[in-house]
Amino acid sequence: MNNSIVLVSGGMDSCVAAAIAASKNETLSFLHVNYGQLTEKKELDCFNSIAKYYNAKNKLIVDISHLKNIGGSCLTDENINVPDANLDSNDIPISYVPFRNANILAIATSWAEVINANSIYIGAVEEDSSGYPDCRRGFYDAFEKCIKEGTKPETKIKIKTPLINLSKKEIVIKGKDLSAPLHMTWSCYKSNNKPCKKCDSCHLRKRGFREAGFRDPIEKMY
Amino acid sequence: MNNSIVLVSGGMDSCVAAAIAASKNETLSFLHVNYGQLTEKKELDCFNSIAKYYNAKNKLIVDISHLKNIGGSCLTDENINVPDANLDSNDIPISYVPFRNANILAIATSWAEVINANSIYIGAVEEDSSGYPDCRRGFYDAFEKCIKEGTKPETKIKIKTPLINLSKKEIVIKGKDLSAPLHMTWSCYKSNNKPCKKCDSCHLRKRGFREAGFRDPIEKMY
Repeated sequence: MNNSIVLVSGGMDSCVAAAIAASKNETLSFLHVNYGQLTEKKELDCFNSIAKYYNAKNKLIVDISHLKNIGGSCLTDENINVPDANLDSNDIPISYVPFRNANILAIATSWAEVINANSIYIGAVEEDSSGYPDCRRGFYDAFEKCIKEGTKPETKIKIKTPLINLSKKEIVIKGKDLSAPLHMTWSCYKSNNKPCKKCDSCHLRKRGFREAGFRDPIEKMY
Repeated sequence: MNNSIVLVSGGMDSCVAAAIAASKNETLSFLHVNYGQLTEKKELDCFNSIAKYYNAKNKLIVDISHLKNIGGSCLTDENINVPDANLDSNDIPISYVPFRNANILAIATSWAEVINANSIYIGAVEEDSSGYPDCRRGFYDAFEKCIKEGTKPETKIKIKTPLINLSKKEIVIKGKDLSAPLHMTWSCYKSNNKPCKKCDSCHLRKRGFREAGFRDPIEKMY
């Protein structure tokens, strides 16, 4: 029986990552991080719903809103506008939150070492994404090395990225296959009330559902 | 002119690391982290004094006291006693705070990427220490790789560990040479008022001053 931590933002990808972890019948501990993002209120609601749905053994909610003070991203700095979607650009978009995923993984690793979890699931997507550097498998390989070097010799923790090479279409299909509660998820970068339908994240979600041939369950909810 | 971040706990080692950074005439930004340790009150006072002494351009104080909730260390869990010193043991002591330095470095890296700092100084000591896994150069090498993989291509950040191979004796001598304000530092793991003189950290400090042939300036202060 594996004992795993799942990083659950409340978005679609982390919900499907949780579904995959749950399908392996592991003991699950859910971690949510408030990093000062505009949509935290909504995301936290989604996290709590998803944790309940999967009957998470432990829940940990952590505030690292100092990343908001550090700034440098439109997701955390209210003075930087969330731009309309531009999925064809090769530049790293302004929605990149500098080294955010390392901050989150460091917390997850501290927790994993104490509760003897042997894996950390993260719903990072490299292929069909906005191109964030901390969403690439190479980064997770480097982080695993860090864990090996920086924890006790008996601590063994793997970072599992089951979505890393999937398209959004494939993520939707995988979620449907596993009965993931996609109606409990939130993707919009901008609003806590109604998806803006304009940001990168709304566009990626919309394209995923369209290509998968399903209707997004949150469309009729908001 | 280098633009550097210095991690300053308020202890002797980080003070000497700051002295070394300052001796290179770099622009300094000082980061202090409250991780829920018993002696944070005293350490924060020391941090502020040292930052003033070195005329730090920026100061950032961050609360990650969720590490106290996660626990697993006598420095953060009040139900675990701080043991008397045992410097001859090869075991990782209970004062190890699981993966703490990765949490701190992740914050420092996020900040460095935003303010364009190109190095992060940390006063970690591998040779003459308590044997924490996240105080070894191998860990910092792995973390540098993580930074390279997980930040923008133009971001170049080195982790500088100028004390890593020094003994406490050599650290005291280096601090004296550079006129580091050692009277503004705190080492005790246990008390905010008067050094306990019993914990690993008090013992390491005492041995360092004795072997260096100096009197510890805080002896007459408390």
